[in-house]
Amino acid sequence: TPFQEESISDLLTKHTRLKLQMSNDIYSTYHLYPPPQLSEIKTTVVYPATEKHLQKYLRQEVYLIRETGEDYKNIALPFIQSQSFSIQWVYNILEKKAEADRIIHENPDSSNGFVLIPDFKWNQKQLDDLYLIAICHRRGIKSLRDLTAEHLPLLRNILQEGKDAILKRFGVAGSQLRIYLHYQPSYFHLHVHFTALSYDAPGCSVERAHLLSDVIDNLELDPQYYQKRTLTFALRADEALLKKFQEAGKA
Amino acid sequence: TPFQEESISDLLTKHTRLKLQMSNDIYSTYHLYPPPQLSEIKTTVVYPATEKHLQKYLRQEVYLIRETGEDYKNIALPFIQSQSFSIQWVYNILEKKAEADRIIHENPDSSNGFVLIPDFKWNQKQLDDLYLIAICHRRGIKSLRDLTAEHLPLLRNILQEGKDAILKRFGVAGSQLRIYLHYQPSYFHLHVHFTALSYDAPGCSVERAHLLSDVIDNLELDPQYYQKRTLTFALRADEALLKKFQEAGKA
Repeated sequence: TPFQEESISDLLTKHTRLKLQMSNDIYSTYHLYPPPQLSEIKTTVVYPATEKHLQKYLRQEVYLIRETGEDYKNIALPFIQSQSFSIQWVYNILEKKAEADRIIHENPDSSNGFVLIPDFKWNQKQLDDLYLIAICHRRGIKSLRDLTAEHLPLLRNILQEGKDAILKRFGVAGSQLRIYLHYQPSYFHLHVHFTALSYDAPGCSVERAHLLSDVIDNLELDPQYYQKRTLTFALRADEALLKKFQEAGKA
Repeated sequence: TPFQEESISDLLTKHTRLKLQMSNDIYSTYHLYPPPQLSEIKTTVVYPATEKHLQKYLRQEVYLIRETGEDYKNIALPFIQSQSFSIQWVYNILEKKAEADRIIHENPDSSNGFVLIPDFKWNQKQLDDLYLIAICHRRGIKSLRDLTAEHLPLLRNILQEGKDAILKRFGVAGSQLRIYLHYQPSYFHLHVHFTALSYDAPGCSVERAHLLSDVIDNLELDPQYYQKRTLTFALRADEALLKKFQEAGKA
């Protein structure tokens, strides 16, 4: 849990009890017992709670899927198409019907352009957890799986203009950014994540994130790379797609 | 910070003050002020501290490097060879001179064998942060960069036998494990990390971790994949290798 700087002197002086644990040369460890007003815990109460609430907060087992190109065509794609994920909120952003004042940068080209906007998880008050999203204007690119060499100009624009815009607005250089796509994504309209490299952002682990630079390299090497390649991702036990893979004997 | 289960009832009943923040339908949020004995903070004191200690604990800027195959040969490899990283502790494990009682599984083959051992960061008391390391018997494989198709039997053994041994000893299935190499690694003798998929392990983010399954796929596709490929990794501002890349105009 991060400390607020202004509470540190209180923590070190006011009614705080120290208990020595270990001392060795110049090193020592203590247990420190701060007074209640410095130990605030944010809690959420749901009452009465339904079975569904319990499910949401109970720990879920997660399973790794290794999805071949064939698995995508036979299992994942039909499932995605059968779902009615609404992405109206994405279209609202692209059409300036919502959040227009939050846009950091736009390339308006309908096939190779995009909108760069702060992610909801970032309050923009400090750069430590900087988090922006580039959403492409072109519709119908569901995910990494749809990308071919045809999309290279779009991807290069997002990489270069995204870095430039973040340097200009926030003073953070491209070498201090982690720029990546999720597979699987949480919504099926192509978007790219920009997070501070020093920030341990949710969803940046190896089983979900794909660096945009690597994606560009792979498509330059093989235009059909993402149609053929086996991709790894994790699914929670309660996700319907996991059941589809299990029924097919693939999980 | 994780809670210990046995302290929860104390937390909820003993001298704990609740302050209502928000109430909406069945949802409400509170600030909870637990008594000092439940708010223990582990602290480390270094006194007197040198400049070097300060450097270690001060926040370090991190920078992303995109290392081409040529950059590896011209910048990173000469630097690695000029350093005298001692890996005697690794040889001690392989030769049973240390930690022999901690070995979970061994394949004794000198070119395709390995030792599987719990990582120091894991106390083995719970499966939530399960963390093991496979260390290959063969010497001289410094990192991912040295791997070719010749090493496929070794890598397949680590993947398959490592999963089997963890299932047998800890009851955790292969589909619930994240199995990966670091690039760059922290020591230059080939080793593979096994962590619980649900554990947000340090070093499992996209700019450092490479899934062993992907490594095997890549070598099957192209035996020289890791000699040619551009690899991305982060370096802290105080690392000597960063200076080498900067001097070469590559960072």
